[in-house]
Amino acid sequence: MAKLIVGIMGPGENARPEENEMAFDLGKAIAQEGWVVLTGGRSFGIMEAAMKGAHEVNGLTIGILPGDSSENASYDADIKIITGMGSARNIINVLSSHILVVIGMAAGTASEVALAIKAGKKIILLQQDEITIRFFKNIGTYKILVANTVEETMKIIRDYFKVNPAHAPEGEEAL
Amino acid sequence: MAKLIVGIMGPGENARPEENEMAFDLGKAIAQEGWVVLTGGRSFGIMEAAMKGAHEVNGLTIGILPGDSSENASYDADIKIITGMGSARNIINVLSSHILVVIGMAAGTASEVALAIKAGKKIILLQQDEITIRFFKNIGTYKILVANTVEETMKIIRDYFKVNPAHAPEGEEAL
Amino acid sequence: MAKLIVGIMGPGENARPEENEMAFDLGKAIAQEGWVVLTGGRSFGIMEAAMKGAHEVNGLTIGILPGDSSENASYDADIKIITGMGSARNIINVLSSHILVVIGMAAGTASEVALAIKAGKKIILLQQDEITIRFFKNIGTYKILVANTVEETMKIIRDYFKVNPAHAPEGEEAL
Amino acid sequence: MAKLIVGIMGPGENARPEENEMAFDLGKAIAQEGWVVLTGGRSFGIMEAAMKGAHEVNGLTIGILPGDSSENASYDADIKIITGMGSARNIINVLSSHILVVIGMAAGTASEVALAIKAGKKIILLQQDEITIRFFKNIGTYKILVANTVEETMKIIRDYFKVNPAHAPEGEEAL
Repeated sequence: MAKLIVGIMGPGENARPEENEMAFDLGKAIAQEGWVVLTGGRSFGIMEAAMKGAHEVNGLTIGILPGDSSENASYDADIKIITGMGSARNIINVLSSHILVVIGMAAGTASEVALAIKAGKKIILLQQDEITIRFFKNIGTYKILVANTVEETMKIIRDYFKVNPAHAPEGEEAL
Repeated sequence: MAKLIVGIMGPGENARPEENEMAFDLGKAIAQEGWVVLTGGRSFGIMEAAMKGAHEVNGLTIGILPGDSSENASYDADIKIITGMGSARNIINVLSSHILVVIGMAAGTASEVALAIKAGKKIILLQQDEITIRFFKNIGTYKILVANTVEETMKIIRDYFKVNPAHAPEGEEAL
Repeated sequence: MAKLIVGIMGPGENARPEENEMAFDLGKAIAQEGWVVLTGGRSFGIMEAAMKGAHEVNGLTIGILPGDSSENASYDADIKIITGMGSARNIINVLSSHILVVIGMAAGTASEVALAIKAGKKIILLQQDEITIRFFKNIGTYKILVANTVEETMKIIRDYFKVNPAHAPEGEEAL
Repeated sequence: MAKLIVGIMGPGENARPEENEMAFDLGKAIAQEGWVVLTGGRSFGIMEAAMKGAHEVNGLTIGILPGDSSENASYDADIKIITGMGSARNIINVLSSHILVVIGMAAGTASEVALAIKAGKKIILLQQDEITIRFFKNIGTYKILVANTVEETMKIIRDYFKVNPAHAPEGEEAL
């Protein structure tokens, strides 16, 4: 049965401790709903924290890896999708997620937000600064949603999945 | 926990009925071992048959899709990886599988066998004709294994996973 | 002999007339130096305008196309690189350019700036608004350069190529 | 003006001396017609030999590189398309060539022939063995052409470009 997938995007090595904590809490909350957590799969930052959170409650995690082997993959990625494509894999993160949440900001993360806007996805910016929000609203208008807490984020996702269930007939569904 | 992934590759629309039956039986046998079935994810041929087999015994299935939406995805792909990359996604099928089984033959399938050889993967050719076996052995030598039945195929995979468990220390593991 | 390649990135259908004019002038100025103009190759906006400018002075143009055929390619793309990869081709635009200039802004364009920062490329933002400049400087620091005219842009590129000639020994060269 | 592009595919490090000689002669003959030589761009084997041949007569060469920098690129690649995608770049070699010639055989090369069949391209197998020809004819039928000399190969390409000029109206053209 098709699984609902929430992408959690954010910096790797340079993520800040409080961002990693939010990613952990969000990953856990998403897994508790029975949804899958998808990340860039590496053993750092937001990616690893979100998957560790999901594992706290036995959730399922997917890592879309840039390298051509499982080297540098997080042990918390249950399903390792090995792309061998470097940053070109960012579009796969975006297209494979029914909705995306962004914690922290870095160049790779910004490319994912931009690609998600281009692909018509909903993106939740969690605790982002004013410049970031204004920039992405300028190019993404109504696709950009803003949240300040994990709870607010979860409410937006729940509402979104009520209107866009994964199993709706083609054309009406989330993806 | 990292999941063992077996890729099942083969034709879509042009798969023959007896090939689809083998794919179904193989998908089921793989899922019974607790391994994940990975395919090209479309709603045709070997891809769909293998995932349907896995679902007979509640297995988990991954579809790596060529398109940029879930259109044309099989309902039997639990996890839909949407690449938007057309045939470039074939390398992802190959790299993400710990071992590959090939049923039937077509141009896309042949590209996957060749890419798997290039990537150093083990490939099991199931009930292939003499020309096909000789061609791929010429370019792939010891990476090309041959089986005539689903049972033989399963024996090869079991032996392979005994020596190459997914959780072995980096460098010794299957991927 | 290795050619110096300048990437010109910007919106397609939604580019504004004055942006297209700047792209035309810039494409022409780049071609006059004997450098190659690289764009996303489609028959719209900044891409087409920049290549038309290059053709005014017999320059060579490369279009990196998202589709899997030359359909929707600009007639002004001399060399059509057909990727069939949709937005995943944006990374190729970035990696294949020795330096990038950005005119106008849209989601695809923003992904290219972000990917260019990630890849360590120099990016010139030509006549961009304050929010855009501040956002990209926040994530890209010294890789983000700012220009207000085609002349200023050309001066930056000339200076860059003086220090980073394409034919310098590996490790010192522009790419 | 759109350039006619001939892809020359074949092994890198493991190409045999007589295969490299054929690639050199073919690259030269193609460049003499004013056509562009496209290869995988690396500094080895068929790729480098074909581009060196083209340079004997001042031809233009394109290298589609697997890496994310110009490291390992041949100095004979005038235009370096840097993909950072490893073997996923093979589909770009195929789609960007109006027609393909294959000299020698290896896993990467075989994937390109298979992808070219899938994409509906014409492929000329130059001096290939019986097994290789039979295998690809089995999956590619009329798209697979066979030649024994560079002269025969050039005659096939000339005839093909007479019927499929690059500048024909969309739908009738070679790509």
